[in-house]
Amino acid sequence: MLTSLQNAKVKEWKKLHKRKYRNQSAQFLVEGFHMVEEVLKSSWEVKELIIREGTEFPLPEGIPYTLVSPQVFTAIAETETPQGIAAVVGKENRGFEPKALTLMIDAVQDPGNVGTLIRTADAAGFDQVILGTGSVDAYNDKVLRATQGSIFHIPIFAGDLEEYIQPLKEAGTEIWASTLEDAHPFQQLQPTGKSAIIVGNEGQGIQQHIVRQADKQVYIPIYGQAESLNVAIAGAVLMYHLKS
Amino acid sequence: MLTSLQNAKVKEWKKLHKRKYRNQSAQFLVEGFHMVEEVLKSSWEVKELIIREGTEFPLPEGIPYTLVSPQVFTAIAETETPQGIAAVVGKENRGFEPKALTLMIDAVQDPGNVGTLIRTADAAGFDQVILGTGSVDAYNDKVLRATQGSIFHIPIFAGDLEEYIQPLKEAGTEIWASTLEDAHPFQQLQPTGKSAIIVGNEGQGIQQHIVRQADKQVYIPIYGQAESLNVAIAGAVLMYHLKS
Repeated sequence: MLTSLQNAKVKEWKKLHKRKYRNQSAQFLVEGFHMVEEVLKSSWEVKELIIREGTEFPLPEGIPYTLVSPQVFTAIAETETPQGIAAVVGKENRGFEPKALTLMIDAVQDPGNVGTLIRTADAAGFDQVILGTGSVDAYNDKVLRATQGSIFHIPIFAGDLEEYIQPLKEAGTEIWASTLEDAHPFQQLQPTGKSAIIVGNEGQGIQQHIVRQADKQVYIPIYGQAESLNVAIAGAVLMYHLKS
Repeated sequence: MLTSLQNAKVKEWKKLHKRKYRNQSAQFLVEGFHMVEEVLKSSWEVKELIIREGTEFPLPEGIPYTLVSPQVFTAIAETETPQGIAAVVGKENRGFEPKALTLMIDAVQDPGNVGTLIRTADAAGFDQVILGTGSVDAYNDKVLRATQGSIFHIPIFAGDLEEYIQPLKEAGTEIWASTLEDAHPFQQLQPTGKSAIIVGNEGQGIQQHIVRQADKQVYIPIYGQAESLNVAIAGAVLMYHLKS
């Protein structure tokens, strides 16, 4: 059993909380029974399980594991009351290709919102999610938790949204941008079947150079006195409209 | 200027973080520029403003205020980086009457979700929100923050949901319960104009004795592999469907 906080492995695991190191190593860490069960059910590669002494977990065949002391587990965990199970997962490297339904997220930094958007995109039958530059990393611990495992169900891409809009358009996708000005109420627009919806952050909205790439601007009417909708809420209403 | 943490006023303010004391005193505390501006714009009674030394805030006429030291402000604030402005607000005591669109929340304890549901109900043009027994208090600090001020725009009631369902039904309201079993996909149900929607917590759903009171059971189809939707997301999709 691994008990030293100075152990090289423990140091590596802790580094996985940093985006830079996740990118370098092409790995990330998931925590808790639900997330570990979800990754084991998926096609993603589990490099190693980390199990706190005394935690009951059915060991899957062929996957290396390390038993650690409670002190070590607490040191590598990001949750306040860790469940004693974590996994090091290898990032999947998929090529992007246009699909029927795409969610694009422009510069949203709140991890709970991004995770909930990924979970909702999965639920709404979307085919992929693209996280634009300036958004929180999809493999951030809080994002992963908010996805409730959907991170393993739906392909996630990251990068400059404009570079994804071009191939989507060439494939006949209609691009909608969720904005507040010069926009159509969503109920008035009929989805074409091949659709992408862009949502932006609550304060600034979608960056203008990206809005200009969209075929249509759409908004969700505010009937009461609220100033705006939470971005995950807006994304959900629009995704279910596009799917229906 | 008030500098002592032992001052009786400071002790009273701190007590407002507890539900029991909010109920006894019929008061609650809101923090930050946005929330204080929202309450001042509303018809709610601001009993007192609390201003940290050095905070610039245009003082409204006729409202008492107390200047406090940074140390005192930090002691009464719930946020990590307080903005230096807070208000003691008197709870409104409205009588309930059936209205066209009602959101009912059964035993949801997550403050972010309940606050977001209130904000979204306001945005979607709902007339009132009812927080069932077992739900987090609407005047909890985190709930208030997540409402983004909508707490001052839409009437909130609390108590046993069954006691509200009866008068709503007598007024001709159709009650929908959001469930997973024996339910219609929401897209297949047409709203009647007078509608109430009940949402429950993500783990247990709506309590059975409350589901039995509903006229219709409705669900949001899951097209992908996600197990469920976040309750605030589900509420939003259903509220915008009822409004449209």
